[in-house]
Amino acid sequence: MNQQYPSVLLENAVNELAALPGVGRKTALRLALYILRRDPGYAERLSSSLLALRRDINYCRECHNICDTDICGICANPARDHSTVCVVENVKEVMAIENTAQFHGVYHVLGGIISPIEGIGPADLEIDSLVERVSQGGINEIILALSSTMEGDTTNFYIYRKLEKTGVKLTVIARGISIGDELEYTDEVTLGRSIVNRIPFK
Amino acid sequence: MNQQYPSVLLENAVNELAALPGVGRKTALRLALYILRRDPGYAERLSSSLLALRRDINYCRECHNICDTDICGICANPARDHSTVCVVENVKEVMAIENTAQFHGVYHVLGGIISPIEGIGPADLEIDSLVERVSQGGINEIILALSSTMEGDTTNFYIYRKLEKTGVKLTVIARGISIGDELEYTDEVTLGRSIVNRIPFK
Repeated sequence: MNQQYPSVLLENAVNELAALPGVGRKTALRLALYILRRDPGYAERLSSSLLALRRDINYCRECHNICDTDICGICANPARDHSTVCVVENVKEVMAIENTAQFHGVYHVLGGIISPIEGIGPADLEIDSLVERVSQGGINEIILALSSTMEGDTTNFYIYRKLEKTGVKLTVIARGISIGDELEYTDEVTLGRSIVNRIPFK
Repeated sequence: MNQQYPSVLLENAVNELAALPGVGRKTALRLALYILRRDPGYAERLSSSLLALRRDINYCRECHNICDTDICGICANPARDHSTVCVVENVKEVMAIENTAQFHGVYHVLGGIISPIEGIGPADLEIDSLVERVSQGGINEIILALSSTMEGDTTNFYIYRKLEKTGVKLTVIARGISIGDELEYTDEVTLGRSIVNRIPFK
């Protein structure tokens, strides 16, 4: 549909909004009209928060997670176990794991996973800095907590090859049937692996 | 889910993005991370386009459509039929009708429709200015082109009551089965009205 916008300002805003993932031109127009209906303060807060995010964001120099300072709150916390490092794809996974309140170590944020289709190779990720971090000593265990996909498995294997000679203990988070899952509806690969990787009943 | 964001900048951006219609906190986080991955120029273009939209937008003083100038391109066009005015809810409908290339008159944009549930009454809409426009003369026909909903029908009726004494010709866009529709799957209200409002076969 070749839309004729009645205003260049509107068209510009729609063009920029439509560049966001999952936002088409119709949604972008709806968002732009919503911004017009709201008080002028909202547009100011929205645009200044996005600008500040992009301009002033820091990445922790230890774990490479998003943060506002030089070192993130988790890495700076002496109560965390700094000898256990959980390797994750990005900040969303850090937040998800923190929400479980089950992990007391620190993180290493790769910034993505190896994906030849999207053109993301090992050099685009924080893998060298992970190897460097391990070589500096003090780390007993690396927990690989990537998605259980082809890309996640590839990245796990790449990291394993990079670290196997360092002697650090490498573990991977358990895969199996989800809590509350009905066996009948579990896919057979997951079910098969959960049988092979069974653990003692306590 | 009580999320702990690792950065105040990230949290602020997520809060503002999540205020947009149809954007939840998970989507807002995904959008914020996308903006972080893109070049800094994108965040600048996005925020400046939204700010300019809200700050500098004009509304045509004839038809109240969004525009960049005092009078919109349609109202300023002498080739358009200024005696035929199509009443629509907002700019999206103007764009949709313009895309059909079937209408050569001008518009009157109400800026919404009467909706007691959303607290939108006649005084919030450009209805008085429509009555004023008709009273100034030169208009032969008012075409009501609102959505075929309870709110649209209410607004149509309100405008009809306001204009019936002016003697201006009031029409409403045809409702009936859509082009390409199968009769079997058409709802009975639409089908019934399309039989009552049948037109000569040409």
